[in-house]
Amino acid sequence: MRPSGRELNEMRPVSIETNVTKHAEGSCMIRMGDTHVLCTATLEDRVPPFIKGSGLGWVTAEYGMLPRSTTSRMRREAAMGKQGGRTVEIQRLIGRSLRAGVDRSALGERQITVDCDVIQADGGTRCASITGGWVALKLAVQKLMKTGQVVSDPLISPVAAVSCGIYAGQPVLDLDYPEDSEAGVDGNFIMLGNGQMIETQMSAEGATYSRDQMNQLLDLAEKGVAELVAAQMAAVNA
Amino acid sequence: MRPSGRELNEMRPVSIETNVTKHAEGSCMIRMGDTHVLCTATLEDRVPPFIKGSGLGWVTAEYGMLPRSTTSRMRREAAMGKQGGRTVEIQRLIGRSLRAGVDRSALGERQITVDCDVIQADGGTRCASITGGWVALKLAVQKLMKTGQVVSDPLISPVAAVSCGIYAGQPVLDLDYPEDSEAGVDGNFIMLGNGQMIETQMSAEGATYSRDQMNQLLDLAEKGVAELVAAQMAAVNA
Amino acid sequence: MRPSGRELNEMRPVSIETNVTKHAEGSCMIRMGDTHVLCTATLEDRVPPFIKGSGLGWVTAEYGMLPRSTTSRMRREAAMGKQGGRTVEIQRLIGRSLRAGVDRSALGERQITVDCDVIQADGGTRCASITGGWVALKLAVQKLMKTGQVVSDPLISPVAAVSCGIYAGQPVLDLDYPEDSEAGVDGNFIMLGNGQMIETQMSAEGATYSRDQMNQLLDLAEKGVAELVAAQMAAVNA
Amino acid sequence: MRPSGRELNEMRPVSIETNVTKHAEGSCMIRMGDTHVLCTATLEDRVPPFIKGSGLGWVTAEYGMLPRSTTSRMRREAAMGKQGGRTVEIQRLIGRSLRAGVDRSALGERQITVDCDVIQADGGTRCASITGGWVALKLAVQKLMKTGQVVSDPLISPVAAVSCGIYAGQPVLDLDYPEDSEAGVDGNFIMLGNGQMIETQMSAEGATYSRDQMNQLLDLAEKGVAELVAAQMAAVNA
Amino acid sequence: MRPSGRELNEMRPVSIETNVTKHAEGSCMIRMGDTHVLCTATLEDRVPPFIKGSGLGWVTAEYGMLPRSTTSRMRREAAMGKQGGRTVEIQRLIGRSLRAGVDRSALGERQITVDCDVIQADGGTRCASITGGWVALKLAVQKLMKTGQVVSDPLISPVAAVSCGIYAGQPVLDLDYPEDSEAGVDGNFIMLGNGQMIETQMSAEGATYSRDQMNQLLDLAEKGVAELVAAQMAAVNA
Amino acid sequence: MRPSGRELNEMRPVSIETNVTKHAEGSCMIRMGDTHVLCTATLEDRVPPFIKGSGLGWVTAEYGMLPRSTTSRMRREAAMGKQGGRTVEIQRLIGRSLRAGVDRSALGERQITVDCDVIQADGGTRCASITGGWVALKLAVQKLMKTGQVVSDPLISPVAAVSCGIYAGQPVLDLDYPEDSEAGVDGNFIMLGNGQMIETQMSAEGATYSRDQMNQLLDLAEKGVAELVAAQMAAVNA
Repeated sequence: MRPSGRELNEMRPVSIETNVTKHAEGSCMIRMGDTHVLCTATLEDRVPPFIKGSGLGWVTAEYGMLPRSTTSRMRREAAMGKQGGRTVEIQRLIGRSLRAGVDRSALGERQITVDCDVIQADGGTRCASITGGWVALKLAVQKLMKTGQVVSDPLISPVAAVSCGIYAGQPVLDLDYPEDSEAGVDGNFIMLGNGQMIETQMSAEGATYSRDQMNQLLDLAEKGVAELVAAQMAAVNA
Repeated sequence: MRPSGRELNEMRPVSIETNVTKHAEGSCMIRMGDTHVLCTATLEDRVPPFIKGSGLGWVTAEYGMLPRSTTSRMRREAAMGKQGGRTVEIQRLIGRSLRAGVDRSALGERQITVDCDVIQADGGTRCASITGGWVALKLAVQKLMKTGQVVSDPLISPVAAVSCGIYAGQPVLDLDYPEDSEAGVDGNFIMLGNGQMIETQMSAEGATYSRDQMNQLLDLAEKGVAELVAAQMAAVNA
Repeated sequence: MRPSGRELNEMRPVSIETNVTKHAEGSCMIRMGDTHVLCTATLEDRVPPFIKGSGLGWVTAEYGMLPRSTTSRMRREAAMGKQGGRTVEIQRLIGRSLRAGVDRSALGERQITVDCDVIQADGGTRCASITGGWVALKLAVQKLMKTGQVVSDPLISPVAAVSCGIYAGQPVLDLDYPEDSEAGVDGNFIMLGNGQMIETQMSAEGATYSRDQMNQLLDLAEKGVAELVAAQMAAVNA
Repeated sequence: MRPSGRELNEMRPVSIETNVTKHAEGSCMIRMGDTHVLCTATLEDRVPPFIKGSGLGWVTAEYGMLPRSTTSRMRREAAMGKQGGRTVEIQRLIGRSLRAGVDRSALGERQITVDCDVIQADGGTRCASITGGWVALKLAVQKLMKTGQVVSDPLISPVAAVSCGIYAGQPVLDLDYPEDSEAGVDGNFIMLGNGQMIETQMSAEGATYSRDQMNQLLDLAEKGVAELVAAQMAAVNA
Repeated sequence: MRPSGRELNEMRPVSIETNVTKHAEGSCMIRMGDTHVLCTATLEDRVPPFIKGSGLGWVTAEYGMLPRSTTSRMRREAAMGKQGGRTVEIQRLIGRSLRAGVDRSALGERQITVDCDVIQADGGTRCASITGGWVALKLAVQKLMKTGQVVSDPLISPVAAVSCGIYAGQPVLDLDYPEDSEAGVDGNFIMLGNGQMIETQMSAEGATYSRDQMNQLLDLAEKGVAELVAAQMAAVNA
Repeated sequence: MRPSGRELNEMRPVSIETNVTKHAEGSCMIRMGDTHVLCTATLEDRVPPFIKGSGLGWVTAEYGMLPRSTTSRMRREAAMGKQGGRTVEIQRLIGRSLRAGVDRSALGERQITVDCDVIQADGGTRCASITGGWVALKLAVQKLMKTGQVVSDPLISPVAAVSCGIYAGQPVLDLDYPEDSEAGVDGNFIMLGNGQMIETQMSAEGATYSRDQMNQLLDLAEKGVAELVAAQMAAVNA
């Protein structure tokens, strides 16, 4: 019944290739089916002005799509002279989500910037960015710990995200683009490794949803996040 | 235990004053405690290019805060040369939420722009904007129907929104600013008059939440929205 | 002969409601007929770089119109990405005019920003902004003096403004929008309480004026300003 | 008593050199003492959208200062990414003033853009721009009439402008920069050739002025404009 | 003597992987040593306004660097709100160079946009963009020809580019970043497959060069371009 | 055969008028035929942040065209809100070229900004800007040396530039606008007084060039630069 032939509760194949660029302190290419996002983590010995002197660190994120990552070419945001509203929303979400898994005091006065650039898009790019972004972040932090600059691990838990929605009347896990463009209701679920929730964003366009449906989607999301966390752990321990 | 002395499940006093400006097709001043938002609805006989000729109408929204609506003065966005990320996020949410209650085919090829301008802020401005925005929208639509330009009512249901969060370990309804700035978890719940959900945005900064807590907040939200819908009905039928 | 039925030298009803917002150090809503402007004064313990260390204070102003303050909706300047030329002209005029009534040395190194936001427009918004802006400024200064932060009153005189013009061949006082859009000649007259002039801006589009006519308009302006100053005094002493 | 040794009612030497650039339909270099402005008039067979089909023409103006036209270098507005508030004010004034001398129906649906670029500044650049701009405009219109594209002269009168102010307690004509930077009160007076007034902009910073003083300045302005109109006539009839 | 141990006239290893993204009509990843650029070609059935109706096609290019493609993180141009001067220069060069190899009349009224996004930078990104960009362009054109939309091949010749410079007093081919940042003289040489030149950009910062040296660099460039053209041919015929 | 009747290797008449503006530390108007560029040099006792404390000086340039310097009016870049790509390219080239003739250590921690503003354009504006810009720079440096602020001359050589191209199949020197708009190949050649090269920019649009042709153009350029250097010397020693 799903265009891809997947079961209702079946994720797309996930792969996370680490250390894909020579300059970044941490990096990975995450592939969720045909959605491919390059995530890099940059470490800097400075923090934003509003926390200078606090002893706390900062984790932030930026997001972009290559112009031809999509079916038809999007205008390049740099050429348009600004980031669109959707881009700003997504990068704020990525930053906020990753910070929920960070002990900023253990990190110390350092900033880590996670860049998530979509190389190829097929739905779910923000979720892939969070899941892959955490891997890049973890790799950068591992370097800090190996050199002894940071002693106690600032990453208290993995952070992963998955989308779920109601497609053709059925709750489905991990929507791809053909599903996403048809679904009347869909949401993004961001969780820690232990299933505690960080952010829930459910949204209906041209439809509504009941609490029962919301609970079904949450069940799917818990299953999906558990699988993603396993993939993250495999990647960072490889 | 709440700074305002309210019960955990008690809303701030709500008032909705209609027809507060002589030019707009629909308008109201909504006051949720010390949060005051002026909502106007502007009717235009044109639609955005992407739906021209479709026979469908469009509802969109813009949001702004007066520079001194807040405790300390914010920079004026017009003077800064752009709307901030938070503003863009909020106005997209208002537009999306209002459209969920609209039969765009019954509206016909018309656009209604809902402007929500915060005169005084004390937490919950986006929820007040949605709730008041729907009233302004309804008043503009009533004019269309009175003149016979529109025959079947395009507003299939009221749309209202309320925030809930976990403050000092307790789930509370309708956070004011002192609560909002302390709460580790808070969310916005947008619903139709019958309790069907349009959008759920829960977010934790420096904390997480369990499914049990999420369910408690949903219970509170349903109570709050029911009260807001009653106030909306009273206002538009006055 | 005037659309409103007023005498040639008759002002619209003026009301000035003070302390209309809880956050600002000074505030008022000024209503000149159907023109309503919310004026707030914000006090800050810093001055612009070009007078740092001079011992002098600064008073500046910003101006805006809500998108639907006008007959047909204007585009929101924040969304357009810049303040229009008319807005910039007006806010520079407001700031310059208010400073003419300030002893900046008595104020000390503090900045007061007066925001004038037009809630509803019916002609004469810049004059209403100056007249109401002075009231907001005065209320903020009164707080500074009550707490002893400022000892000698930095406001040496009230500042008020009124428009006059030639409508249907006759000199008239305080033009409303129907008059303003027809008048070939109109001007703004900004004065101190004693009638000394701060700024005169007379302008003809599609017409010209003689010195005789200019003198007639000045006579009207003196009458109008005297009435406005009385309203200001009543408001700040209430 | 004036830094330049001029009499109180004495203008700087004025020269207007015509046809100084080979591309523009009309052009001149106006020199008022050390203030030099290059004025060009560009003729186009199109009008702005808001008058399309009305049969009326349009005259508009743009103003700029070369970065090192001033004592110390100003930042280039093109590099800053916007025209400053002062620039916008001035170019709106130039356009408005020139239009006051135009019979837009005789001009027909054509646009003339007058560019005023300050090559060297020593006070009074906006007045020089209006006076020189009118000459460029006249030369362009003469071409239109010579070729018979326009039959009845659309320029009903010359338009000229001069500044006056109160310097060291005395009313003076045509302020240069050393006077302008000291004067507490100064104004710009724009008139037709017959002395009818188009625009009066008097402004005090750190001072005020009485009606008596205003009348003295108007007397000076009438003298100055008469001399400028004579120079304009000599230039265009050369 | 070169940091990489290469001979003076030795290129870095070149690889061109084709069809690397599923959406674009043509794509490749070009790797010149550690410089990796993703090139995509987008085909659209429209042309820019200035050639509408001419029967001619258009080829244009855009260029960008991922923020962490470089040793230290660059600011994201979309977030800065504009493309820097260097970016604009480079993308104009890429477009101009590719057009030199195109018979725009054979292409017909179509536009092909070549996006060159630097994934990892180690010197020579503009040359890699041109060389890889031509491959993406060729693959898109092959699709047009296979479907018969275009009959005669619009690509009259391959276009390739290489940099040469004077490093430590010696002329060297294909500078990598360590060489590029030290070289006082360097240039980019863009040629057709037959060695005819399209563009030569030689530039010295803190040094100069003689005609003899220029001739030595041209010899190197001819050798380099020949090798690149061979790699292009292998890629597109694979 | 050339539209102007010049020989293939004949320059347009060159004149360089010095000290044309009273404010700038150095200035000239350079005229190459009908191309007229006003060049001013501004001296400031500060350097950009990236060389602060290095003991080195900086020379930079900005470029602009008056809107009606061209056959048809160009939009004013300040009004458009940004400098176009061509402007940015040119001003970077001017700055880079002038710096090649500067001993920045002899200059000391000072910045000289060279503004090149095109008053009238007829081809070759960037070359005229470099040649005239050097004269303005030299005059400013002479003042520094006369007052003893700088002891050893920081200008190690004149810098001059000329364009050459292939017009109607023939190599020609110093293209004017009618030639430039037809030439398939043209280039800019920037050299020191002794003929050493600083920058070579050859570019073909809709054509290509051989090494033989390139050598012919270089021969022409050497002749042209020698004549320009003679004119520069005459100007600065006048």
